Amino acid sequence: MAVFTTVSEADITAWLANYSLGTLLELQGIPEGVQNTNYFVTTGNGRFVLTLFEKLTADDLPFYLNLMAHLARHGIPCPSPVADRHNRFLGELNGKPACIVSRLPGKSITEPTVAQCAAMGAMLGQMHSAGLSFGDQMLNPRGAAWRAETSQKVKKFLSPQDAALLENEVDVHALPLTGIPRGVIHADLFRDNVLMDGDRVGGLVDFYFACTGNLLYDVAITLNDWCMNDEGRLDAERTRAMLRAYHAARPFTTREAGAWPQSLRAAALRFWLSRLHDQHLPRGGELVNPRNPEHFKRILQNHIATTEFVWL
Amino acid sequence: MAVFTTVSEADITAWLANYSLGTLLELQGIPEGVQNTNYFVTTGNGRFVLTLFEKLTADDLPFYLNLMAHLARHGIPCPSPVADRHNRFLGELNGKPACIVSRLPGKSITEPTVAQCAAMGAMLGQMHSAGLSFGDQMLNPRGAAWRAETSQKVKKFLSPQDAALLENEVDVHALPLTGIPRGVIHADLFRDNVLMDGDRVGGLVDFYFACTGNLLYDVAITLNDWCMNDEGRLDAERTRAMLRAYHAARPFTTREAGAWPQSLRAAALRFWLSRLHDQHLPRGGELVNPRNPEHFKRILQNHIATTEFVWL
Repeated sequence: MAVFTTVSEADITAWLANYSLGTLLELQGIPEGVQNTNYFVTTGNGRFVLTLFEKLTADDLPFYLNLMAHLARHGIPCPSPVADRHNRFLGELNGKPACIVSRLPGKSITEPTVAQCAAMGAMLGQMHSAGLSFGDQMLNPRGAAWRAETSQKVKKFLSPQDAALLENEVDVHALPLTGIPRGVIHADLFRDNVLMDGDRVGGLVDFYFACTGNLLYDVAITLNDWCMNDEGRLDAERTRAMLRAYHAARPFTTREAGAWPQSLRAAALRFWLSRLHDQHLPRGGELVNPRNPEHFKRILQNHIATTEFVWL
Repeated sequence: MAVFTTVSEADITAWLANYSLGTLLELQGIPEGVQNTNYFVTTGNGRFVLTLFEKLTADDLPFYLNLMAHLARHGIPCPSPVADRHNRFLGELNGKPACIVSRLPGKSITEPTVAQCAAMGAMLGQMHSAGLSFGDQMLNPRGAAWRAETSQKVKKFLSPQDAALLENEVDVHALPLTGIPRGVIHADLFRDNVLMDGDRVGGLVDFYFACTGNLLYDVAITLNDWCMNDEGRLDAERTRAMLRAYHAARPFTTREAGAWPQSLRAAALRFWLSRLHDQHLPRGGELVNPRNPEHFKRILQNHIATTEFVWL
C-alpha cells in the first residue's frame, strides 16, 4: 500500500535522458498504489506520472499502454503514455517494467451528485464508443474461470448460508450473456479511479483491469459503486441520471435492457469474491487493510431480492 | 483575418457525432486565424480547437497531423489531433478539410524574459529530439527554390540598394548548409505561436509550416523573434539563455557553431522575403495588415554587419 520500489532523483534523471520531457523539477511518491509503484514527476514539459509495474509483466503491458494511447488519441481523458526516443512506451527502471504517462486534472470524490453521475455515465459511453476501434483483445482475468476457481478457494471460510449463496451465484453466471455488445471495458471504474474536475470528468485512471467484455457489465460495475446508497441499494435518481447519460452517448440495445439485472448481480459477485479472496487469502503483506467483502455481499443480496430495477 | 468559413452549433453537433468527445457545451470563433478557420470547442470531454483548412489540401495535411500526434505522444505540449470513430484525424466540415485538436493552456507573450527564453530554448531542443523518430519528410515550402522565385517577383518593387541586398542574400543561401543535423523543424516558432504558462512553455502551436530541415535554422528563426531588441539586434542575455538551454537538451555540434551566423541570416531573409511578398503581392483580401518587411530587413542588415555573435 505504498511505494514498493524506491526511485531516487538520480534514477529518474538518468531515465528521463531517454525521453524528450525536459529536466526533472519535482519527484514525489504516491502512497495510494496497491499493485504498482507510482510517482508524480514534474519536468520542464509538464506534469506526469511514473509507474513501475510490480506484478504485471512486460508481456501483459502493451495491451494496457496501447489501449490508453488509443483512448487518449480519441479525446478520452485518460493517462496518455509518453513514448521514449525510440518510440517505445515501455521502459525499465530499477529492474521493473516502467512507463511515464500524462497526469490528469481533478480528484476522486466519495459522494457523487446526480450531475456527476450523469457526467460519469456520458464519459463511460464515450469511452466504450472510442474503444470499438481498438484492435487488441484481452480475456477478462476476473471472468467465469476465475470465479469458479476462487469460489472453491474461499468457500471454506464462509458460513453455510454464504457458501450456498456464493455457489449459486457462480452457477448463475457460469455461462456468459450472449447477444450483448462487446468491446473494451475498464472493469474497475470505481469512484477512486475517476478524477472529477467539478462536475466534469477530468480523468479515468488505472486501466490495469481493462479487458474485452460486455459493455453492459462495465456499466453495472460503475453503477454498483457510484449510485449505491448506504443500505447497498441503487439510488434511483443517480442511477437514472447515469444510465440516461450513457444511453445518449452509446444507446443500449433491447437485449441489454433485459440483461441489466443479471449484469448488476455479476458485477457485485466479482467484487464480493475478490474481497473475500483478499481477506482470507492475502498475498504476503500486500493489503494491510483489505476492503470489507460484506458490502458487496449485501449489494448482491439486494439485487437478487429486487423485482423492479430502475432503467432509462 | 478571421473566421473564413462559418460553423454553426448545428454543424458542429452533427460533426461531433463522428467522435467520442461528448456533447457540445460551447463554440467560439477565433478571430486570429490567417490561413485557417479556427473555433474553440468545449465538449463534455474538455477543451478543443476545431480547424477548417482554407488553403492546405487533404493531401498535405497528414504530414502535419501525424507530426503533431507524434510530438504529443512524446510529451511535447503541442495540439494533439483527435481521431474520429474510424480512427481518422482528418474529416470534412462545411466543404473544407477539418480536424479537431486538444486545446493547450497558456497565452502568447510579447516581451519574453530571460527565464522564458531559456524555457523556450529547452522546449525547442526537446521538440527537435522528439522529432528525430518521426518517419515522414516534407520539403521546406519556403526553401531555396521559393526564395529564388519570390525574390524575382518582389525585386521590382524595391529600391536598387534593397534589390541588390536581396539578390546577394538569395545567392549566399542558394546552396544548403551541409553537415548540419537535420530533422523536423517548426519553421515559424514566433512568440505568437507559443503559449506560455508563466515561465513554462504551455504549448507550441500552428505547425502548418513544419518541414524537414536543418535544426539550427529553426533555432535561428526562433531567436530572431524571441531574443530581438528594438534595434533589431539580438539581446545578448536572452540569446545566451536560449542557446544554452537548447544545448542542454540537444547539444550543438561544432559545425553548427560555425554555421550560426549564416543560419541567422538565412532565417531573417526568409521572413523579409515573405513579408515583401505579402506587402507587394497580396493574395485577394488575405492580409488586411501585412506585417512590415522593414523589421526583418534591418535584422538581416545587422546580422551581416555583426562580427562577433553571441554563442553558448
